[in-house]
Amino acid sequence: MKILVIGASGTVGKGIVENLRPNHEVIRVGRQSGDLQVDLTNDDSIQQLFSRSGNVDAIVAATGSVHFAPLGEMKTDEFAIGLQDKLMGQVRLVMIGKDYLNPGGSFTLTSGILAQHAIRGGVSAMAVNRALEGFVQSAAFELAGLRINAVSPTVLTEALESYGPFFPGFESATAARVALAYRRSIEGIETGQVFRVW
Amino acid sequence: MKILVIGASGTVGKGIVENLRPNHEVIRVGRQSGDLQVDLTNDDSIQQLFSRSGNVDAIVAATGSVHFAPLGEMKTDEFAIGLQDKLMGQVRLVMIGKDYLNPGGSFTLTSGILAQHAIRGGVSAMAVNRALEGFVQSAAFELAGLRINAVSPTVLTEALESYGPFFPGFESATAARVALAYRRSIEGIETGQVFRVW
Ligand SMILES: NC(=O)c1ccc[n+]([C@@H]2O[C@H](COP(=O)([O-])OP(=O)(O)OC[C@H]3O[C@@H](n4cnc5c(N)ncnc54)[C@H](OP(=O)(O)O)[C@@H]3O)[C@@H](O)[C@H]2O)c1
Ligand SMILES: NC(=O)c1ccc[n+]([C@@H]2O[C@H](COP(=O)([O-])OP(=O)(O)OC[C@H]3O[C@@H](n4cnc5c(N)ncnc54)[C@H](OP(=O)(O)O)[C@@H]3O)[C@@H](O)[C@H]2O)c1
Repeated sequence: MKILVIGASGTVGKGIVENLRPNHEVIRVGRQSGDLQVDLTNDDSIQQLFSRSGNVDAIVAATGSVHFAPLGEMKTDEFAIGLQDKLMGQVRLVMIGKDYLNPGGSFTLTSGILAQHAIRGGVSAMAVNRALEGFVQSAAFELAGLRINAVSPTVLTEALESYGPFFPGFESATAARVALAYRRSIEGIETGQVFRVW
Repeated sequence: MKILVIGASGTVGKGIVENLRPNHEVIRVGRQSGDLQVDLTNDDSIQQLFSRSGNVDAIVAATGSVHFAPLGEMKTDEFAIGLQDKLMGQVRLVMIGKDYLNPGGSFTLTSGILAQHAIRGGVSAMAVNRALEGFVQSAAFELAGLRINAVSPTVLTEALESYGPFFPGFESATAARVALAYRRSIEGIETGQVFRVW
């Protein structure tokens, strides 16, 4: 398959690319890095990405920023960052990208364990990830002939050095193990699912 | 208790006010109607509301718009309307209102059955309601000494004339029955919960 991996240079994305490369034609996409560039916060930039890539068989997003802070110290605009970036970035990708997916093609988006488990400072992350999972569930009913799933990783082993202190007692998963879930979504038959790796 | 009901003039809000009035001091709030006015899409307006109301024992929100359209016909900006209005309106209310709630006080927000069940055109509603429920769950851990819950109504019997065609086969609930869940949240001890009325 011809597969776009957006966020290919990231901690999660690198594992996905490594898993898929032996069996697929992988196009690595990043904001600055990769074979092609895109800014998911901008509709026109996404249109340009697809006019360069042409039609593909699978689209993966492993991107998205969220603001972390205690509720009492967060400004309302800061809470909304993740809605604009992580949530709407991936929603935009689907709304525009569906016209460039070959029949039977799939989207695989990225949520995270913070959808269900709270950590200090993670109040916006829980809202954003939960919205993403709701989007995937409902979009699956509307994307006739296409599939859409999300992968929800726990903290990555490769990210423990920076994020570890925020995830006390959480079991990590390696990028290689998390990548299996993306592959399951891409090559499998399920749709509207959240594949939890935790 | 002294209770602010925002959205008091609405289909859901009227039922809440009727239920609470015999036992509480209810302040009805609307965008244009009510004892006090507020625009939940605006931080300053919320600050002004609380400088008028003073401290209260419970804050209820029964407001929030979402754009309904099939995914294939929706623009990305339209998808985001509900995030700014229904979600961030209620999030703003909590982020600012927590400083005006008396100890032991509570927030009760409004989600809806579309958080879990998809209808035609409801893709943004599912994302928005799911985010709201995630916000409630995680905010409950951070609001020390305060409580926060959401009520998730099915379609209201009083709204069937306008919304009925979008909810084929859904069982409706009267505003009076839905109002019980708000009362349960306000006078009960639970926090971080979603009270489903369906
Ligand atoms: N790391 C973890 O432990 C972990 C755990 C659970 C969930 N997640 C989720 O997984 C996703 C990826 O996280 P990560 O840690 O792998 O991120 P990361 O290492 O920071 O990598 C981010 C990737 O996204 C690209 N990117 C950033 N902003 C973009 C934009 N506006 N448009 C297009 N691409 C953009 C970057 O491209 P450039 O390099 O070119 O800038 C980079 O390839 C996030 O949603 C995160 O919440 C991560
Ligand atoms: N109706 C249903 O069947 C149903 C079912 C499930 C869930 N819900 C949810 O319940 C909530 C209320 O729905 P509803 O049908 O009762 O709404 P509604 O009848 O349209 O009433 C809306 C209320 O909110 C106020 N309002 C509107 N925009 C506002 C703003 N920016 N700031 C502050 N107040 C504002 C209005 O005040 P003014 O009158 O002064 O403009 C009015 O009191 C929504 O979140 C909806 O999704 C409704």
